[in-house]
Amino acid sequence: MNAPPEFDAPFRARLRELLVWRRDVRRFRAEPLPAGTIERLIELACLAPSVGLSQPWRFVIVEDAARRAAIRRNFESCNAAALAAQDETRAGLYARLKLAGLDEAPIHLAVFAERDPAQGHGLGRLTMPETAEYSAVTAVHTLWMAARAEGIGMGWVSILDPKLVAEALGVPAKWRFVGYLCLGLPENQDDTPALERAGWECRRPAEAHILRR
Amino acid sequence: MNAPPEFDAPFRARLRELLVWRRDVRRFRAEPLPAGTIERLIELACLAPSVGLSQPWRFVIVEDAARRAAIRRNFESCNAAALAAQDETRAGLYARLKLAGLDEAPIHLAVFAERDPAQGHGLGRLTMPETAEYSAVTAVHTLWMAARAEGIGMGWVSILDPKLVAEALGVPAKWRFVGYLCLGLPENQDDTPALERAGWECRRPAEAHILRR
Repeated sequence: MNAPPEFDAPFRARLRELLVWRRDVRRFRAEPLPAGTIERLIELACLAPSVGLSQPWRFVIVEDAARRAAIRRNFESCNAAALAAQDETRAGLYARLKLAGLDEAPIHLAVFAERDPAQGHGLGRLTMPETAEYSAVTAVHTLWMAARAEGIGMGWVSILDPKLVAEALGVPAKWRFVGYLCLGLPENQDDTPALERAGWECRRPAEAHILRR
Repeated sequence: MNAPPEFDAPFRARLRELLVWRRDVRRFRAEPLPAGTIERLIELACLAPSVGLSQPWRFVIVEDAARRAAIRRNFESCNAAALAAQDETRAGLYARLKLAGLDEAPIHLAVFAERDPAQGHGLGRLTMPETAEYSAVTAVHTLWMAARAEGIGMGWVSILDPKLVAEALGVPAKWRFVGYLCLGLPENQDDTPALERAGWECRRPAEAHILRR
């Protein structure tokens, strides 16, 4: 064990800024990221917590043009269905939202979770097997912040049919799809979510989400 | 919009240290945290990303002794079942692990996700409703790092029956239990997971979790 670090007030203020300026990015500049960038970010993501130290996260770097096109078709189909499901007062606004950067983002990364990995020997998962996916989510969130700290934007696409994603990428049947990530240099930086800027939804104060028992 | 911050290499190095030194803490000092600490950490947690800006996280600050005792009984019962499910080569090691700090931790925080909140107007959740829970998980992870940056330890307890947790805390029926968090000053700091120090499991290199397609 090395000497424990001290995290001081200036660092905590910068960490807060990182949280404030992390966005779900859907508008990317097309230029590529330097070779090795995504591998370095995945290495940081693997410092995330995982249930029973099972590290059930599975990262699929998607480079093949045909596979990317299949993901794009999957999104377009699911997004059309989501638009049709909107009530008519909001459909016009929904149709104007840009909800994925699949066309421009230089890096595509699909994230899965292995539901019952040998690693971890089942610890912590008996009553809550969904903690495998939750572990993969903490890895995604770690990657997101590490990327933002380098000026790299990330967007999480969930408007996809999970079964078709798994088929398009040819992953083992027991992997569960968690999310499809687009990464690249963002067109702009902002401290306000795109959905709030577009008038779709606004954030509530923290107290609205707290109960006491 | 304010001027975007620049995150420099020294900040990124500190952020990496934060990830390296974040632990799942199960050994706490009993002394209380200053009033307002958990509320401040929850406010930072609410900066986490959420599907469709739905902020479906629900935080329950658990202070009532009888409710805490019910959670402790729930853990003990589930942990006994988990011990019984271990194969005999590992049961002895499992029995020696300390898997929760429910007795000592001054702060108990239960986290739930609302599966179908009005906020967000359903955006992003049609094909993957589980993104509501995933949003709550990113809030938990945010809180975890913010706590560690203040020298506060956190442990995530998943060895619980979710239905009994919801009953013990009297929360709305449509909330889904995500995790039960213990927070307080840690007995010690470490850059190696407790399960690795105890010989339960060790981490694998990032490449073991990457596919290319």
